[in-house]
Amino acid sequence: LSGSEIIALLKDHPARTPEARIVRCMSERGAITAADLARATGLARSTISTALSELRSAKIVIEVAQSMEVRGAGRPTSVFSLNPRAGTCIGLHVGLSSLRLIVADVSHAVLHHDEIGLGLDYTPQAAMRKARTAITDAYRRSGLSPHSLLGIGVAVAGPVAPDGRIQRASIVPNWAGVNIRHVFASAFETAVFADNESNCSALAEMTWGAATDIDDFVYVKIDVGLGGAIVVQRRVVTGAAGAGGEFGHISIDPNGGLCRCGNRGCLELTAGFRTVLERMSHRQKRSVTVEDLVERAFGGDVDCVEAIAGIAEAAGRGLGIIGSILNPGVVVVGGFGATAGPLLFDRLNDSYERHTLLKRAQLAEAQRLRIVPARFTTDGSLMGAVALVLRGLGALQGGG
Amino acid sequence: LSGSEIIALLKDHPARTPEARIVRCMSERGAITAADLARATGLARSTISTALSELRSAKIVIEVAQSMEVRGAGRPTSVFSLNPRAGTCIGLHVGLSSLRLIVADVSHAVLHHDEIGLGLDYTPQAAMRKARTAITDAYRRSGLSPHSLLGIGVAVAGPVAPDGRIQRASIVPNWAGVNIRHVFASAFETAVFADNESNCSALAEMTWGAATDIDDFVYVKIDVGLGGAIVVQRRVVTGAAGAGGEFGHISIDPNGGLCRCGNRGCLELTAGFRTVLERMSHRQKRSVTVEDLVERAFGGDVDCVEAIAGIAEAAGRGLGIIGSILNPGVVVVGGFGATAGPLLFDRLNDSYERHTLLKRAQLAEAQRLRIVPARFTTDGSLMGAVALVLRGLGALQGGG
Repeated sequence: LSGSEIIALLKDHPARTPEARIVRCMSERGAITAADLARATGLARSTISTALSELRSAKIVIEVAQSMEVRGAGRPTSVFSLNPRAGTCIGLHVGLSSLRLIVADVSHAVLHHDEIGLGLDYTPQAAMRKARTAITDAYRRSGLSPHSLLGIGVAVAGPVAPDGRIQRASIVPNWAGVNIRHVFASAFETAVFADNESNCSALAEMTWGAATDIDDFVYVKIDVGLGGAIVVQRRVVTGAAGAGGEFGHISIDPNGGLCRCGNRGCLELTAGFRTVLERMSHRQKRSVTVEDLVERAFGGDVDCVEAIAGIAEAAGRGLGIIGSILNPGVVVVGGFGATAGPLLFDRLNDSYERHTLLKRAQLAEAQRLRIVPARFTTDGSLMGAVALVLRGLGALQGGG
Repeated sequence: LSGSEIIALLKDHPARTPEARIVRCMSERGAITAADLARATGLARSTISTALSELRSAKIVIEVAQSMEVRGAGRPTSVFSLNPRAGTCIGLHVGLSSLRLIVADVSHAVLHHDEIGLGLDYTPQAAMRKARTAITDAYRRSGLSPHSLLGIGVAVAGPVAPDGRIQRASIVPNWAGVNIRHVFASAFETAVFADNESNCSALAEMTWGAATDIDDFVYVKIDVGLGGAIVVQRRVVTGAAGAGGEFGHISIDPNGGLCRCGNRGCLELTAGFRTVLERMSHRQKRSVTVEDLVERAFGGDVDCVEAIAGIAEAAGRGLGIIGSILNPGVVVVGGFGATAGPLLFDRLNDSYERHTLLKRAQLAEAQRLRIVPARFTTDGSLMGAVALVLRGLGALQGGG
């Protein structure tokens, strides 16, 4: 079974045929009943029925289960989804010292994941070769046909220009000025899309996560570093050079400490976990992760609780600045920091309120900022890279 | 001649008839030849000719002049514009202690302007009554028919919620929570639109000024206060509560001086002229304006040159922060500060470069920030209020 049929359906935009509308709906929502398909697409049940038969005989759609939910007559209901074999996407995360990889089907079920260490200072060519080997292995081991591959989405730990060029302040010096789309497109005969990791995470939240019904929001990643993305009218604002949403590098103190970006007093120094982790790792003579820190905070460790509160305070100040610039109605918080729950969110809300121009008490409910946790934690940028492929192919562009 | 005919044409969106396309084109570009109309609309010359005849006999379009430009056969060419009497808009600026008013025709020619002192602490009702008297006077004195009025646009010196409610931190305490659209709509039998003054200025620049061909930009007003607006895909980002683009209230130092908004260390304290003007006025025992200060700086006054440089330095820091958040390709600088020319812009560019994440040298030409002066200085928000009416009526919504 080749990916070309499903690509044709995904590219049919605006979706004209019932088949294309069903495929798009499933690519956004995963497994679904015929009744819910009718509701979501507005198509008649009989039309859905005929189209589903067509799609099932073409092996693009499969019946995955019988819903236990009792409706009307009490008969079990069939649940359908896209055939994982009908089309696969690769999400690739290019990080500081490793590559992460997922293979997902068009209903965003993850079929395979992998992490490949690269050490520091690896070259784009080395990364591309490792990725090629890992992808070939992944398809072989999962029994997937390489012909099912619809495209590769690449999430990059740094700004990516609109044309795919990796900017300064990214990953490793070897990558500066390299066009990541070109590097990967030269090795794979498929469509390649690339964006910053937080822009990808925002896309994942918008497509399958905490922001599926929100047109305008800000995404903030609180993790070792601090990152973010801006979504306006369901489009990620990448900026003229790809530095849109680089919240970690808001300079809050021009006389402050030196940041890895070369500027001073960047927000990331106080609102990301790196500084705290380095201090703790040094003291404990072992590598402490954000996960460790959050776990110990939940266990009542006062230092860890205070470290999270300090990060929330600084991040809230940053959100206050973002509030005076963009005045978002919703901020989605991702990264491992978000797993700290109320230990992070309570202080984050307090700090935002102190630093923002318009205070809660004076605003109507609908105008108040809601700070909500992301659905995806570590895998957000990978899921977003998959969404980048589906969106790039035209499937999700209309948002429905 | 009533405004209803032209409203019907402006509301015809997307413009279907040649008449509607010509009217929209003239509302955006002012006086224009038939040849340029053909180029701009893509209509055949013969179609333009027929439609112009129709519009002229309906007194919606008039011939304003013969162009001296010699074309082909060397005959003078006729120049057409919308008949000022065919439709008028009111732009109203609601400021700290005064109302300003313009009456403009649909080709944005200003037919009348007026300023009405109100003193501090005036009520919305008092402002509305003064505005009503001033508008009646303006139409009578200019010999304009009140029936030509298409709508009123109100530019407010503070955040305006999407529904028209004036937020805290605005104008005078009496206005907080008041819906300005309702106040004015109750007194005038016409459409009323309202937005923040800098959002209006950005709209004026986008419609008739420095950003007519730019889809994404940031507008910054450097004047007594510091204001701004964000334009994404030719739409002003007002934010959930109307505080989008409130750059003056970016808190750059939580331990800094108290701002009129109630927070500490707002950018406006160092990047607006208020602090400097108060100091100079106190020293000179007279009220010094931004105009005075800029004039003296051009005359070589070292204190004034340094004051402008200090403001440019602080504003550049603010732009650096905005750069890490939105990474705009173009910043349009308005307000009286912009009249300082290189005295302001040179330092502004330097300071932005020092505070921003991505440096010029590492960027392709097209990715570098361009900081450009606005076309409108004092009257930008009033012109924008007029654009708000035309856009609100559907005329400019498509951007062309």
